[in-house]
Amino acid sequence: MTRILVLNPNSTSDVTASMDAALDIVRRQDGVDIVCETLAEGPPGIETQEHVESVVLPVVRYFEARPADAYVIGCFSDPGLALARENLRKPVFGIAESAFHMAAGLGARFGIVAIKRGSIPRHMRNIRGLGLIDKLAGDRPLEIGVTEMGDAERVVGRIVEVGRELRDVDGAEVLILGCASMGGYRREIEDRLGLPVVDPTQAAVMRAIGHLTLGYGKAA
Amino acid sequence: MTRILVLNPNSTSDVTASMDAALDIVRRQDGVDIVCETLAEGPPGIETQEHVESVVLPVVRYFEARPADAYVIGCFSDPGLALARENLRKPVFGIAESAFHMAAGLGARFGIVAIKRGSIPRHMRNIRGLGLIDKLAGDRPLEIGVTEMGDAERVVGRIVEVGRELRDVDGAEVLILGCASMGGYRREIEDRLGLPVVDPTQAAVMRAIGHLTLGYGKAA
Amino acid sequence: MTRILVLNPNSTSDVTASMDAALDIVRRQDGVDIVCETLAEGPPGIETQEHVESVVLPVVRYFEARPADAYVIGCFSDPGLALARENLRKPVFGIAESAFHMAAGLGARFGIVAIKRGSIPRHMRNIRGLGLIDKLAGDRPLEIGVTEMGDAERVVGRIVEVGRELRDVDGAEVLILGCASMGGYRREIEDRLGLPVVDPTQAAVMRAIGHLTLGYGKAA
Amino acid sequence: MTRILVLNPNSTSDVTASMDAALDIVRRQDGVDIVCETLAEGPPGIETQEHVESVVLPVVRYFEARPADAYVIGCFSDPGLALARENLRKPVFGIAESAFHMAAGLGARFGIVAIKRGSIPRHMRNIRGLGLIDKLAGDRPLEIGVTEMGDAERVVGRIVEVGRELRDVDGAEVLILGCASMGGYRREIEDRLGLPVVDPTQAAVMRAIGHLTLGYGKAA
Amino acid sequence: MTRILVLNPNSTSDVTASMDAALDIVRRQDGVDIVCETLAEGPPGIETQEHVESVVLPVVRYFEARPADAYVIGCFSDPGLALARENLRKPVFGIAESAFHMAAGLGARFGIVAIKRGSIPRHMRNIRGLGLIDKLAGDRPLEIGVTEMGDAERVVGRIVEVGRELRDVDGAEVLILGCASMGGYRREIEDRLGLPVVDPTQAAVMRAIGHLTLGYGKAA
Amino acid sequence: MTRILVLNPNSTSDVTASMDAALDIVRRQDGVDIVCETLAEGPPGIETQEHVESVVLPVVRYFEARPADAYVIGCFSDPGLALARENLRKPVFGIAESAFHMAAGLGARFGIVAIKRGSIPRHMRNIRGLGLIDKLAGDRPLEIGVTEMGDAERVVGRIVEVGRELRDVDGAEVLILGCASMGGYRREIEDRLGLPVVDPTQAAVMRAIGHLTLGYGKAA
Repeated sequence: MTRILVLNPNSTSDVTASMDAALDIVRRQDGVDIVCETLAEGPPGIETQEHVESVVLPVVRYFEARPADAYVIGCFSDPGLALARENLRKPVFGIAESAFHMAAGLGARFGIVAIKRGSIPRHMRNIRGLGLIDKLAGDRPLEIGVTEMGDAERVVGRIVEVGRELRDVDGAEVLILGCASMGGYRREIEDRLGLPVVDPTQAAVMRAIGHLTLGYGKAA
Repeated sequence: MTRILVLNPNSTSDVTASMDAALDIVRRQDGVDIVCETLAEGPPGIETQEHVESVVLPVVRYFEARPADAYVIGCFSDPGLALARENLRKPVFGIAESAFHMAAGLGARFGIVAIKRGSIPRHMRNIRGLGLIDKLAGDRPLEIGVTEMGDAERVVGRIVEVGRELRDVDGAEVLILGCASMGGYRREIEDRLGLPVVDPTQAAVMRAIGHLTLGYGKAA
Repeated sequence: MTRILVLNPNSTSDVTASMDAALDIVRRQDGVDIVCETLAEGPPGIETQEHVESVVLPVVRYFEARPADAYVIGCFSDPGLALARENLRKPVFGIAESAFHMAAGLGARFGIVAIKRGSIPRHMRNIRGLGLIDKLAGDRPLEIGVTEMGDAERVVGRIVEVGRELRDVDGAEVLILGCASMGGYRREIEDRLGLPVVDPTQAAVMRAIGHLTLGYGKAA
Repeated sequence: MTRILVLNPNSTSDVTASMDAALDIVRRQDGVDIVCETLAEGPPGIETQEHVESVVLPVVRYFEARPADAYVIGCFSDPGLALARENLRKPVFGIAESAFHMAAGLGARFGIVAIKRGSIPRHMRNIRGLGLIDKLAGDRPLEIGVTEMGDAERVVGRIVEVGRELRDVDGAEVLILGCASMGGYRREIEDRLGLPVVDPTQAAVMRAIGHLTLGYGKAA
Repeated sequence: MTRILVLNPNSTSDVTASMDAALDIVRRQDGVDIVCETLAEGPPGIETQEHVESVVLPVVRYFEARPADAYVIGCFSDPGLALARENLRKPVFGIAESAFHMAAGLGARFGIVAIKRGSIPRHMRNIRGLGLIDKLAGDRPLEIGVTEMGDAERVVGRIVEVGRELRDVDGAEVLILGCASMGGYRREIEDRLGLPVVDPTQAAVMRAIGHLTLGYGKAA
Repeated sequence: MTRILVLNPNSTSDVTASMDAALDIVRRQDGVDIVCETLAEGPPGIETQEHVESVVLPVVRYFEARPADAYVIGCFSDPGLALARENLRKPVFGIAESAFHMAAGLGARFGIVAIKRGSIPRHMRNIRGLGLIDKLAGDRPLEIGVTEMGDAERVVGRIVEVGRELRDVDGAEVLILGCASMGGYRREIEDRLGLPVVDPTQAAVMRAIGHLTLGYGKAA
């Protein structure tokens, strides 16, 4: 059976559980074994560059020790993506890069709901680096910490506020939830704003299934 | 069962058969019913703008008369895509647009093996229109007609020649086969050139499966 | 005598009359025979993609049956432009494409007064396809139907409102009236907003005269 | 009668005569009085930046002293264009800027036949400054001096060589003759290379006629 | 001793004094002789294109008559830059071009505090011409004349207002003071807005020192 | 006294010595204490992504333990740059980023002499991320390992070959030596190819001096 290993590089198991729940929709359609695991040694939330760098080697070592047909790095800063692709013989996907590609195919331009202001420059470098800058309508922050993302009412309210600006001021036709922990709110945001919303974890796993199905090897 | 209807707008059933065979790889993984049909009233090959325009309304009427969960227009000029999206309540995908998006996620820049020189301006307008011009490395023609695509040896030889220029002169990291009829040669070209190769029909069907699985409606 | 045939693909003769009146300014200067005709079988207004596609073949057939030195397609969605250029031995011009080129030469960036929100994506694809995206400042809709464009006071009021945003918020130095039916209001808008305003029909006919005068053949 | 004053800022009257002859094609169609004059105090050829700067104020003073409905600066470095537009109450056109706009509307991308290698950076800055960089296919030099442009056989031979590279290597669909003195060779180059060729002086005068006919004032 | 000659092309000695004071910070670190001089024949302020063109040849002649190791043109319209580079055997720097390069290295995108609305198109052409348009966040005018720049309270108040819009609405991470006369306010603006601010004169002299130190000749 | 700490993250002291020698030119002009040190725990050469990631935290920890006024990361993959900027209270500079900015100010477009083909994608992502893609003419590899860079004759021969293609085929006006170990060859390459050549280590230290002199703090 095809096995896809999704690793949450932060140590908050609630976030892993949320990602795992969001992937049920993929499991229903496909007979693929999708496993979500937590990097115990990771920080509770990945918000600073220190956090990002601290998990790069642990993420890659984690993957190297566990066979799978494809790997997904479950953090919007895509930590360790380049190294994992160099070292592993199987395809590797970052959830941010995958979200950008999925959103590009869902509308003319997309908007990002960033978790904090400080992550916006990282998004910009990633999107420019991918040659997709023409598809970006806007990027605005929630200003809520990763470990507080369980407070549904507050979080949804803020995402809707930010999403409205991305849609009405910046002209976004698609929204990207800019953190693995936001995925559980996708449906509600779609209903409230009337736009397709990309959950990066879903985007990455679906992209992995696509590449595996069509027989694309490690190059991704 | 999820049903995806793929329509070949040209009337050459060999091309439909070739597309259908290329989709077996998708059927193996997914319990989705993928049906390839031929537009009997279409021209034998779609090479001129007259051919393209002549099938726009027939393609859309064909889809409107047949229920499915998603529709794929199986011609690299994506004829009728905008109208189909406006009229149908289900998602619609063009194989060229889908190929550009898949290739974008497979390497830094892609090269297109066009069927004839005359189709290159159409590609350029499509890629620019999608905001993906930064991802294009080159576009070079085979100069072989659609109805001659069954002559394997000659076709493969030419695709390899053209692909080599796209890879070595233009710097393409991924190749797109610029016509539905070329799909059967994908594996051989990958082996000969050492690059991932996109079969547009496979790309579109996989993209459709991705959108349906993740619950994206008609907006695409 | 040089003959330029301008076809209004919608069947509302008031719109044809409005285009014809706007071309008097061209007739005064040039001894060219400019004829505006109505496609009787066209819809009253071209607002949806269905309308656009439904007139593509009729427009081209109409031109093929009538000799002229140049042809102008008088609808901002430029329906049938690519096919007409392929089939006819004389130059063909779309009013949107011509408006974009004229506006590009009148100021650093232009703004479009679109007729409805739904036409904006079509403009974007056209402008990107032309490689002129750097010249676009903004595109905002009037939200008034083609057949209601005769209500001068209401229409001018809305165009001024929208034009003000394009000028002051988006930084447009030139405005384009995004529908053949708006042409009659050009002078009034120029007076009220102090910007040069492009009437697409005038732009296309002047462009045709330019190409014919300088001896450029069918390639345009 | 509408009067368009074209000034050759170099003092070589053969160049003025060549420009004047190229404008006969415009006179035949239009009852506009087009006058070509020579700036006696200008250098024999404008090839260096010193030459360019030395004619800026003389060009503007020349125009200020002579009434006309529009002014054309007949040198591919467009010397004095910005100042002339600021000072004169009538529209002013540079032949390079006009050539870029005309060529943009004649094909997907254009190539420039530059007179000398040293003028290429000036072209690049102008084209980038106009926001038209996406339309440039290539720019290659003849390496023949302005005052030697009368040697038809040698010049045509070189233009054809350079034009061939622009067309076949760089993918240009249109060529621009990058110096006022090259205009007389337009027809021959079109016949030999099968591409539309822009004579900048013709482009500027036609553009002036377009702006005047449509009633655009000094803003251009 | 290395000598850098900075010329203020306007005749207002207060502006020269302000530039000179701003360069003390450079003198403290480097044992380079930096001399600021005034072009007596220049206009009091350089605001119109007429002013710009009128100083081009005087600036170059001024430099040609005075030996130095590098030259800096101290006006944000960089008048005479191209000619000075062609004629002089030493490197020449314009303060606007230098400010754009310095700002590009200080943050993702920069905003310009222009002196008057009329200078904004000139900035745009310069930045596009340099291929740095992706680094521009916004450009907004103070609407205060060059000769009024000594009124500190009023000027600082306006710069802060404009800078706030550039930072909060346009997303600038760095500000450029768009006129040589604004330099003295740099520190205060940095304190008030919390962004790095570029004084173009400082940027140009530091760039000159960099090029001289590393042994780059006239090519710049 | 101002202290700039340059760290070579690879453990080959010959490379550190070469960087140090190249900085003598900077010491002569400035009374700044520039110290080059070697990261003993680093790999002999940084060529793979594994190498890059393995030095990120060591580089930052190294800097955190040593006071300085500015820090320079002496490896063309700029490892640890983002983290160092987040953690340190002083400005930090990567030699690649600094080389791109310096080269941008030395000519219209630059070419990179990459050390190996595998580093080219990293350059592309960096340059796109910086918004400087319009300034890139080409990037071609030497295919010589970091630890073999001491073989002057072979290395210079290859750099000249590659530089010639960048200059004549790709149109580069400036060359960047794409590895800290190439710096010692700068003069010879400039003499042989007649283009300004950027040594990234020199560029970074000069940039640091510029920022410190002008009082720019940690934001860079």
